[in-house]
Amino acid sequence: MERFDIHILGCGSALPTMRHLATSQIVNVREKLFMIDCGEGTQVQLRRSRLSFGRLNHIFISHLHGDHCFGLMGLISTFGMLERTADLHIYSHPDLQRLLAPQLEFFCKEMPYNVVFHPFDPGERTVIYDDRSVSVETIPLRHRIPTCGFLFREKPTPSHIRRDMIDFYQIPIYMRNRIKNGEDYVLEDGTVVPNARLTMPSEPPRAYAYCSDTRYQPKIIEQIEGVDLLFHEATFASSELVRARKTFHSTASQAAQIARDAKVKRLLIGHFSARYEDERILLDEAAAVFPETMLASENLTVSL
Amino acid sequence: MERFDIHILGCGSALPTMRHLATSQIVNVREKLFMIDCGEGTQVQLRRSRLSFGRLNHIFISHLHGDHCFGLMGLISTFGMLERTADLHIYSHPDLQRLLAPQLEFFCKEMPYNVVFHPFDPGERTVIYDDRSVSVETIPLRHRIPTCGFLFREKPTPSHIRRDMIDFYQIPIYMRNRIKNGEDYVLEDGTVVPNARLTMPSEPPRAYAYCSDTRYQPKIIEQIEGVDLLFHEATFASSELVRARKTFHSTASQAAQIARDAKVKRLLIGHFSARYEDERILLDEAAAVFPETMLASENLTVSL
Repeated sequence: MERFDIHILGCGSALPTMRHLATSQIVNVREKLFMIDCGEGTQVQLRRSRLSFGRLNHIFISHLHGDHCFGLMGLISTFGMLERTADLHIYSHPDLQRLLAPQLEFFCKEMPYNVVFHPFDPGERTVIYDDRSVSVETIPLRHRIPTCGFLFREKPTPSHIRRDMIDFYQIPIYMRNRIKNGEDYVLEDGTVVPNARLTMPSEPPRAYAYCSDTRYQPKIIEQIEGVDLLFHEATFASSELVRARKTFHSTASQAAQIARDAKVKRLLIGHFSARYEDERILLDEAAAVFPETMLASENLTVSL
Repeated sequence: MERFDIHILGCGSALPTMRHLATSQIVNVREKLFMIDCGEGTQVQLRRSRLSFGRLNHIFISHLHGDHCFGLMGLISTFGMLERTADLHIYSHPDLQRLLAPQLEFFCKEMPYNVVFHPFDPGERTVIYDDRSVSVETIPLRHRIPTCGFLFREKPTPSHIRRDMIDFYQIPIYMRNRIKNGEDYVLEDGTVVPNARLTMPSEPPRAYAYCSDTRYQPKIIEQIEGVDLLFHEATFASSELVRARKTFHSTASQAAQIARDAKVKRLLIGHFSARYEDERILLDEAAAVFPETMLASENLTVSL
């Protein structure tokens, strides 16, 4: 099965601590790397992950709070020093370009590559990226400022052609890709061998949903239904329910309710408030509602 | 003796690695904290140092390259979340204020404290800070952009009054501070007891010079002569002498020449190029010229 991995570079909340860094993740889909959010310290974490900097061409920013974007300038400027030449695409609320432009102008003069901004409206559900392997769609969320999550949907892969059928019908090489992509095979005597007989269906395409930062927002359930992995913020324990609502964050239990109601396969919780020295209370509260819950942590990789 | 410590938060060069973070230091003079430079990741390092955030009120920026200032926004915004109320003073080239203002406006609305900018010309030797314990003077350096170092000079402390003389002359309490500050004591019969007889001189005031980033610049020798500790950048080994000159950096050996010629007590080298997996080559080259050389490293504290 081709690679579809989530690497956690940072999963703390607004106040970085010695236990957790500010938010950033890498989604590796078939060796193409996509970054979600880029808090301070992301470039060092990316180095630690040993993922190839050169395979990262697209960065998605959920919202313009510092703990989700203060690492961008360092990353962009390091890419310049490493003599990157490929365009770097940044997808975000339009304000980011306005804020970064003067800094790029000052700190990144004569960079050997371009930063290309792709502004979008986080309040609208939109496909903001699409290639032959994956599409990325925004998930409108409810936070103090315009915010969205991201839904990564793998494209279906071609069927597997059956080795025994190739041998049996002596199928020539030039036909094999066409059969993988759904064609039937016609024998010399005109007999049609239906595609279903020649192939085995490939693995079903996978999906990953990232939802941070947000208040409990059941509207998203329909959009993320059945995903293989949901990352959902779980800033607080239930004892802080009032604070969660006030600051437009979720409790671990609310994250689990979303996971349960959306019938996702697994839930990964993160964006932990600095007040929790030990996040097991968050894990316990979430797992009570949705057993397939995991705690995010720096340098964790989850394969879908 | 009162505290005068240097804490290294980061001592790498432009490319942060897993071994070294971008530049930042804390100078602790009698429990007042001063920050020099603020590369990405500084706030987490400051937390790791366990120094009190509340005692830090002054930040000095040597020059506007990203590895010396990209941590400012994160630090400023974290101070806001921690409900700081005291003004935070930032001393730098005037361009910094222009670059930070739109970000402060966007990311730090309604902060409970003020950021106060103190622009200065890094090309001029100027006292930019002065209180009753310490003064800070700029040290013009030679880098690709306007850059200066900082010279921290402790103020002399009052003499120590001699316990045996207090007892012998029955000196009343109200006179003791005046004697510490240099007054003579007049006995009831009019006899003058000279101050030198009543006191012991205090420890000589100490000084710390920070010089990074810079080409070999012997002009600074006169200004930093005899300091207790010199931090000098040593980006390269001698094999990279040409590159050092071209990029306006120093070799370890050049740093040591400055230390030797300025007759400083100790030399601390840092700002290591990412190419050195092991900095012992830099230490060896510097120590060959100036034996009292130490390698900087993250979380190192040097007491003067």
